[in-house]
Amino acid sequence: MKRNQNLNNSLMKNKFLKSIFVVTLGCALFVSCKPKDSTDAVEGDAAQKVYVAPGKYDEFYNFVSGGFSGQVSVYGLPSGRLLKVMPVFSEDPQSGYGYSEETKPMLNTSHGYVPWDDQHHLDLSQTNGEVDGRWIFANANNTPRIARIDLKTFRTAEIIELPNCAGNHSSPFITENTEYVVGASRFSVPPDNDNGDVPINTYKKNFKGYLSFVKIGKEGQLDLSFQIVAPGVNFDLSHPGKKESHGWFFFSCYNTEQANTLLEVNASKNDKDFIMAVNWKKAEEYIKAGKGKRIPAKYAHNTWDEKTQSAKSVIMNEVLTLDASELKDICYMIPCPKSPHGCDIDPTGEYIIGSGKLAALIPVFSFTKLKDAIAKKQFDGAYAGIPVVKYEAALYGEVQKPGLGPLHTEFDGKGNAYTTMFVSSEVVKWNIKDLKVLDRKATYYSPGHLMVPGGNTEKPFGKYMVVYNKITKDRFLPTGPELAQSAQLFDISGEKMKLLLDFPTIGEPHYAQGIPADKVRNNGQLKYYDIAANKHPFATKGEKESKVVREGNKVHIYMTCIRSHFAPDNIEGIRVGDEVYFHVTNLEQDWDVPHGFAIKGANNAELLIMPGETLTLKWVPEKKGIFPFYCTDFCSALHQEMQGYVRVSPAGSNVPITYSVGTNLPKE
Amino acid sequence: MKRNQNLNNSLMKNKFLKSIFVVTLGCALFVSCKPKDSTDAVEGDAAQKVYVAPGKYDEFYNFVSGGFSGQVSVYGLPSGRLLKVMPVFSEDPQSGYGYSEETKPMLNTSHGYVPWDDQHHLDLSQTNGEVDGRWIFANANNTPRIARIDLKTFRTAEIIELPNCAGNHSSPFITENTEYVVGASRFSVPPDNDNGDVPINTYKKNFKGYLSFVKIGKEGQLDLSFQIVAPGVNFDLSHPGKKESHGWFFFSCYNTEQANTLLEVNASKNDKDFIMAVNWKKAEEYIKAGKGKRIPAKYAHNTWDEKTQSAKSVIMNEVLTLDASELKDICYMIPCPKSPHGCDIDPTGEYIIGSGKLAALIPVFSFTKLKDAIAKKQFDGAYAGIPVVKYEAALYGEVQKPGLGPLHTEFDGKGNAYTTMFVSSEVVKWNIKDLKVLDRKATYYSPGHLMVPGGNTEKPFGKYMVVYNKITKDRFLPTGPELAQSAQLFDISGEKMKLLLDFPTIGEPHYAQGIPADKVRNNGQLKYYDIAANKHPFATKGEKESKVVREGNKVHIYMTCIRSHFAPDNIEGIRVGDEVYFHVTNLEQDWDVPHGFAIKGANNAELLIMPGETLTLKWVPEKKGIFPFYCTDFCSALHQEMQGYVRVSPAGSNVPITYSVGTNLPKE
Repeated sequence: MKRNQNLNNSLMKNKFLKSIFVVTLGCALFVSCKPKDSTDAVEGDAAQKVYVAPGKYDEFYNFVSGGFSGQVSVYGLPSGRLLKVMPVFSEDPQSGYGYSEETKPMLNTSHGYVPWDDQHHLDLSQTNGEVDGRWIFANANNTPRIARIDLKTFRTAEIIELPNCAGNHSSPFITENTEYVVGASRFSVPPDNDNGDVPINTYKKNFKGYLSFVKIGKEGQLDLSFQIVAPGVNFDLSHPGKKESHGWFFFSCYNTEQANTLLEVNASKNDKDFIMAVNWKKAEEYIKAGKGKRIPAKYAHNTWDEKTQSAKSVIMNEVLTLDASELKDICYMIPCPKSPHGCDIDPTGEYIIGSGKLAALIPVFSFTKLKDAIAKKQFDGAYAGIPVVKYEAALYGEVQKPGLGPLHTEFDGKGNAYTTMFVSSEVVKWNIKDLKVLDRKATYYSPGHLMVPGGNTEKPFGKYMVVYNKITKDRFLPTGPELAQSAQLFDISGEKMKLLLDFPTIGEPHYAQGIPADKVRNNGQLKYYDIAANKHPFATKGEKESKVVREGNKVHIYMTCIRSHFAPDNIEGIRVGDEVYFHVTNLEQDWDVPHGFAIKGANNAELLIMPGETLTLKWVPEKKGIFPFYCTDFCSALHQEMQGYVRVSPAGSNVPITYSVGTNLPKE
Repeated sequence: MKRNQNLNNSLMKNKFLKSIFVVTLGCALFVSCKPKDSTDAVEGDAAQKVYVAPGKYDEFYNFVSGGFSGQVSVYGLPSGRLLKVMPVFSEDPQSGYGYSEETKPMLNTSHGYVPWDDQHHLDLSQTNGEVDGRWIFANANNTPRIARIDLKTFRTAEIIELPNCAGNHSSPFITENTEYVVGASRFSVPPDNDNGDVPINTYKKNFKGYLSFVKIGKEGQLDLSFQIVAPGVNFDLSHPGKKESHGWFFFSCYNTEQANTLLEVNASKNDKDFIMAVNWKKAEEYIKAGKGKRIPAKYAHNTWDEKTQSAKSVIMNEVLTLDASELKDICYMIPCPKSPHGCDIDPTGEYIIGSGKLAALIPVFSFTKLKDAIAKKQFDGAYAGIPVVKYEAALYGEVQKPGLGPLHTEFDGKGNAYTTMFVSSEVVKWNIKDLKVLDRKATYYSPGHLMVPGGNTEKPFGKYMVVYNKITKDRFLPTGPELAQSAQLFDISGEKMKLLLDFPTIGEPHYAQGIPADKVRNNGQLKYYDIAANKHPFATKGEKESKVVREGNKVHIYMTCIRSHFAPDNIEGIRVGDEVYFHVTNLEQDWDVPHGFAIKGANNAELLIMPGETLTLKWVPEKKGIFPFYCTDFCSALHQEMQGYVRVSPAGSNVPITYSVGTNLPKE
């Protein structure tokens, strides 16, 4: 208790926090209380509405960020069933992602191999402002990166690191025709950080925020086009303009106090922080006009090649930058109360909603008014060299008394907005035009993001809404100190929101995306890899080509697998200390027939090899003896028989390399 | 097609397989066809039956093996919702299991650190033959191990490696009062394998199977009591006797042909293989009488200490063995058609069911008859020195025409058995007494294990049955080449089985366990760790005690976290190449308030620190500059502000160690 009091006292120094603290009776800011007047009542038909009968398909894919799991999970809606966890930024022992030689380069960075990240937000590719089912983009927060996942294969196809950045939080949001995906610093750091050594308390002088604009090619290729050098504040979230506001990007930022310690107090002082409006079309013009400055910056660009079925990592060495404080007409600050978190644009592109997590109202800005204010220079001075637009000049209006702790807003395409209230644990529906609150429903507990399929695009599919909560306790059967976090599915097809279902989630769900299932299903889904097109340098396309080749202390095993044996399955002549590479090709050409490969005692994960694919497991035997290997994925009635043996002889042994399947018959 | 034909031809050489192959029209052995006369029809009330309304709890915990994920997942029944994935044998970037200094020793083995395994079966602790909710045991197949998970914390408490073994498949089954947990070799290897170097084709002479009996202490402590040296066959599954047959253990085995290559053909030749009946009480007597032989054998024994919140790994050096071929009255072979897989004992302990995966019937053996046959020496010679009981002498009867490819059987406690049929993709209900088939239902596709809560104990809870399938295609929305596997929930409370729900699963579900929720919930579930009881050597129990200590090139950071800041949050004086240890203590004392810790660019996963817990992240900075760290688990409205900075200076720098929170104020 004493500790909590100390903390509370330090927070009490802040007047605003004090008022919120009193309102919430001293608990909600820390642990959400049960929402007032809350009931768990669900409509009588909720069970039928979420039930997807065996053999039937869900209506929507729901891609959910994995947060501190580093991965992206795929749920079906309305059932809430977890269909897949896609490995993106973290090692995945289950599939061998990050452990196989082919996939290791995907996790390379300018800091070397990084086995984990914190994955916060997702954005589906769009065509004409509508989700198109080609790719989904994911951000990494800790070691700043953006990934592109191919929805033909549900595999990570590309990862690009963002230099000069730390805490890439306001990412990976994309423009209406998938021209750019962005990132920005939540934690500002000094430019050329690798080469510097400055005291932390020189923050105000030395630390900068960087906004990254990554160009997306026709095939999805990522290219870090340019970075905008911005003040050293904490950029939090972002969204692109739409339709009329296409060409602009909007970033929320907090810590305009530029504190470098105890931010919970020191970054919560200003009554207003900012949404930064960025005219990226203007930035493009400056780049074309040669106003960009190339600076040294190391970052990794990792790509997966479907032909060779291998990743490669290239370290890039410089980046083109524009300085927002020098070029006065690309960035504008819009004052926004207080520590704005969500920054959401309505489907028409006209309304910009800033959710100040410590604010007691929600400001709605008008793009038309903003443009007008800029044209008329209705400024309130500048912040770090960037013009500050007058609050009232850009403001369309305010939603009054929406709840406590507004965080994020999505849209249903019918003129309504839905905002999560972290502190008062509720979701609030309000009308965008008249800013009136229409409905509010309790959530359990402390909702972060919410998601309507297409709800951040120009065409929302306003049937379901999912709210992703931060606290789960008492919602599901307990699982010790560590609990899953939870999602709640609402029916938003009527005037009032209806709670349908609670379902737990992997890692921590932050932002999510939803898309009608057919847009992904009918978009050239790959069922297996064409073995004829397999250009892996160590592919073995038929059992007769399987072999074992020694090159010094490296041994390459060209192995095939098909129900239900490996070839070869008896291998001798390996020595202690050899670098052994099992290059295993799955010869199957049918859907849902992966084979797995593992060998006893390996300091490595397994390989999970899809039909037509080749993967490589590196093994350095440190002991002599007989080592069994086997198929780890039940593949047929004779799966248990799908095994083999490797004999490891002492270093320096003269046992020759031999290999076979079916011919090394037993001696009696 | 040509490749498949070649394979088919090789299989055709085997007469039995040919007959099955013809029966199944050439497809089911490889890819399951849609079951005949199958419908997806579910009863009208299925939706209501599986719906667990928001705020309500599931009725049963369903612990499901993760297969090639290496972990154990926890589902709720009847909802099929995934409540938690428990890290056991594989690294888990999400929680830092295997990455934090405290947890690394849990994955140590005699082969060094192993980041992955293949987790097949689970067994709940029992008291008087009934599940009691204290612990659940899990096996590792690839690098043979058994884990104990504590159901107070849902954490892996202990892992013991099994020496002399490979492919620990018929594990971790336990006796009716949790006296022993067993393991055995699916892949026989030579004894003293570490020191040997023999050709693979000396299999018949040199390879042996080992059965491990691991004693379980009152607090759950594992102790490898003894191993039985058995013939070099492939032990597949096992179950303990019950009631009258308590004191015996039954292990199925295949590859009695002792083939070492192309087992799909060469291990499928014999019309009957065996169930090996082991009289472990007799084995105990021999051990007591000093008949055991101590042999050198290296294996790891890893234990988690709740007080120090750290794991330690001890390498053991010898094991006590009994030779089954020398001691003639501890092991008996019961012939069993054909390549038996499942080996299941009914709740009364009288009936032993062997499921020959290539057999067209299911033999049911009688324990009474078996004892009688042994007493009367009704033997058919011996196999590798072990008496073979006459088939008819032990046989109670056969279930005729049950389906194709019987694998596993569970019980409802009402006199009925339920067997999965891999090849014909169905589950079949039959009466144990009269051996008549009562009902059959199609499953999708290729069912492996099935589970009734308590269904392998003396007290099944025969309300639900879950069948875990190997093939998923077309059951859920597609996710590219890699698909989740699926579970199907049936209502078995009536005469006919009713399909209720399909739900996808993590990794590959093999065996599972179920238990009424209250038996776990009300059994002392831990909500957080008592900070006062935290004996971690680097625990920091109050913010004032936080500090940074340099010892040569090692830097220990004693850090605390509480909503919403770290102490210290500004750290200077670290040098490139230092070994930095962040020992982070979560000071919270409330449920569901973990904090996460991550630092930019670390070649490590995050820490996910439960309230009252201390965890350590090792970091070796390779670059100078400013490195932000932050809380990765959204913990309060000011979570985004929960961050700090570390300054890394060049190697040899004179910047002194300094650390603070809230006082290193910015210079203007």
